[in-house]
Amino acid sequence: MSKLIVGMVGFGVVGSSVCKTLLQNRAIINARAGKEIVLKSVVVRDKAKAEEKLKALNAQQVKVSDNIDDILEDSEIEVVIELMGGVEFAYQIAQKALLAKKAFITANKAMLAYHRYDIAPLAKGLPVGFEASVCGGIPIIRVLKDGLSANHIIAIAGILNGTSNYILTQMQQHNRDFQKALLEAQALGYAEADPTLDINGGDAGHKLLILASLAYGIHAMPEDILIEGIEGIKPDDIAFAKEFGYVIKLLGIAKKQDNQVELRVHPCMIKKGAMISKVDGVMNGISVVGDCLGESMYYGAGAGGEATASSVVSDIIAIARGESAAMLGFERTLDDTNHLRLKNKDEIYSRYYIRLYVSDKPGVLGQVSQILGKHNISISTFLQRQSDEEQNNVAKMLFSTHHCYEKDINGALAELVKFDFIIQNPYKIRIED
Amino acid sequence: MSKLIVGMVGFGVVGSSVCKTLLQNRAIINARAGKEIVLKSVVVRDKAKAEEKLKALNAQQVKVSDNIDDILEDSEIEVVIELMGGVEFAYQIAQKALLAKKAFITANKAMLAYHRYDIAPLAKGLPVGFEASVCGGIPIIRVLKDGLSANHIIAIAGILNGTSNYILTQMQQHNRDFQKALLEAQALGYAEADPTLDINGGDAGHKLLILASLAYGIHAMPEDILIEGIEGIKPDDIAFAKEFGYVIKLLGIAKKQDNQVELRVHPCMIKKGAMISKVDGVMNGISVVGDCLGESMYYGAGAGGEATASSVVSDIIAIARGESAAMLGFERTLDDTNHLRLKNKDEIYSRYYIRLYVSDKPGVLGQVSQILGKHNISISTFLQRQSDEEQNNVAKMLFSTHHCYEKDINGALAELVKFDFIIQNPYKIRIED
Repeated sequence: MSKLIVGMVGFGVVGSSVCKTLLQNRAIINARAGKEIVLKSVVVRDKAKAEEKLKALNAQQVKVSDNIDDILEDSEIEVVIELMGGVEFAYQIAQKALLAKKAFITANKAMLAYHRYDIAPLAKGLPVGFEASVCGGIPIIRVLKDGLSANHIIAIAGILNGTSNYILTQMQQHNRDFQKALLEAQALGYAEADPTLDINGGDAGHKLLILASLAYGIHAMPEDILIEGIEGIKPDDIAFAKEFGYVIKLLGIAKKQDNQVELRVHPCMIKKGAMISKVDGVMNGISVVGDCLGESMYYGAGAGGEATASSVVSDIIAIARGESAAMLGFERTLDDTNHLRLKNKDEIYSRYYIRLYVSDKPGVLGQVSQILGKHNISISTFLQRQSDEEQNNVAKMLFSTHHCYEKDINGALAELVKFDFIIQNPYKIRIED
Repeated sequence: MSKLIVGMVGFGVVGSSVCKTLLQNRAIINARAGKEIVLKSVVVRDKAKAEEKLKALNAQQVKVSDNIDDILEDSEIEVVIELMGGVEFAYQIAQKALLAKKAFITANKAMLAYHRYDIAPLAKGLPVGFEASVCGGIPIIRVLKDGLSANHIIAIAGILNGTSNYILTQMQQHNRDFQKALLEAQALGYAEADPTLDINGGDAGHKLLILASLAYGIHAMPEDILIEGIEGIKPDDIAFAKEFGYVIKLLGIAKKQDNQVELRVHPCMIKKGAMISKVDGVMNGISVVGDCLGESMYYGAGAGGEATASSVVSDIIAIARGESAAMLGFERTLDDTNHLRLKNKDEIYSRYYIRLYVSDKPGVLGQVSQILGKHNISISTFLQRQSDEEQNNVAKMLFSTHHCYEKDINGALAELVKFDFIIQNPYKIRIED
């Protein structure tokens, strides 16, 4: 049996899980690959730490180096696996690996969000695997590239971040407030010490951009798309959602209409019966609507060492088999879709939920509804209640609207906030039916 | 752009959907395939009917023949797509196509259930695509072959038949009895005029065998495995399930333990929270547990012309790309798993729900529990109620048991049925926790 020799840059949780999987499942992996997969070297900053981990895995035969050239200049190594994170330095590794004619595998969504279209032309037929970059172990890259290849993708709606989904699930099923749920997530290891990218939607945005390239060939950067996080969600919003049969989820949404694609990440109220609404806790789920297939959904662990290693190793196996687990997917959609353009954020057309805390005095509702009307916003449901916040004489007004434009809702809220009777910044959540 | 020319045998609902998809999504399909896909000929029994359908699709350029040799002897045709159903004749088509050195694509689960291991040696490197044979448009074949290739598959539990899932959903959510739900399914076109294979578990059994070959290399025939349908389920069973937080689903289950694999299709009580329990109506869903990934689930339309065409066309595209959407998957698992053997049905170890209708007289419960005890069956929960059936002095006894062996439960029920106090044949449903 011939060998496929691989080198790895970075040896953290995912890296050591890849090493462990290659050893533990060696027989089945080699059988499926048709080659013996050999992890020859890892490149790390802290050699002693890596050596310790390799010892614990009984994998002392793996060489440890702190010099990337030890992999790039090793002509035996045919595949470079980048698992170090970060953007620019990881991109340099990709460039160097491909220039050295080595296949490249990465789990790095942030790097791909910024540089996926820079990498594609460097590949020149070399495989570039990135199954692990979106939703850990769920094989969603292959689903879009291969499984659904006959379909125009009409829409994607994904729970792409397990940390925020855990927090929202705790808030909705166990009446936690945001801060408490976040602390719990951190205590359980579901959230980093700095959870910013998880809760502000940034991580989900990176993943959405990768999916959008596969589905639509859309060449956008994170800054180009609407990204909002879950930090502002309050128990009042959850109570409203429950009352009207909704569940609140942080969704990454891609939708094609005519020659425009909208890409956005934000909390959403979705109907309780929708399959994606049932994805709870740290799990991820991606609903994909194709023009032939209709809706399909893919559910599983979106993070964690072993789940992510499952995807990294599946890319190694595909490369060993000579199949193109390649970034080619981006170009392959282009012939038909290069006329697609990213929809302007202002043109997003949606239903909205609006939460206002107002002074509890006569005439406020009249003024609010007048301003909404002026901005072409028509109310669908309305709830007013005494606030259970500490202050007295504060009322909360909770609306849902009919469909309207993002620019109109933003205009209305910007006008409202100037009034004295508005106690807190107005808050909105989009409603997806 | 070079061409990939395909011929099709059978031109029913799926066949004409494949033709329609190839035409409608031509630009994107050709871009993704890297070749122009051309459907050149269809072979059918009724030429006039096919010509009419092709006319409706504005596809008169497709040749119609009632002679299979018109495809087999056409050296331009590189791919034969079999969409006619049936077992032996379809198998002959597969043999002839592969002998003629043409790639072969099929949506035919019944044929594969019996002949998949006969076809594999004939392929000799020729691609054999069968994504459409299991769960229509859900790309579950690729998931097992590629996406989860790093994993030992610990278990598969699938809702593999939409008709029976529709009937069970109607029974549970709308209080229909079996007959009424079946009639509804037929009226809506979800069930055939002869729904036997859908409701008796046969169709799900065919699909399970294909999945088991990919996951475990298990070479079994439908007759070798436990297959039960949903015909016997009554409102009493559904009421019991609801009371104890279960949902009843027809599952195809594959489970590996040590060097044994159990394969079985039967109604199951599964916990309401489980993701697979949320797959309702005609939809299909497959939960797969891998040793790296943990649980993942795949959800979508398991039948219907367009959904199935989505999979057929994805196989054509994979063949055009030179990727092996091939039956090779079966051998690829063998090196590691050819020591696996099919578990004997009697050795299945499960929890059970038991329904007895008995004469409402003293001492019956004592006799029943004595017999269960004698067969090593220990009761977990017990409900006794007056029957709402017409007869008076009939009581229904509904049990759930702790784990026990299939042979013991069958022994106990066979003994019970001899007693006069048993009014109807005892009925059991396995409980999966």
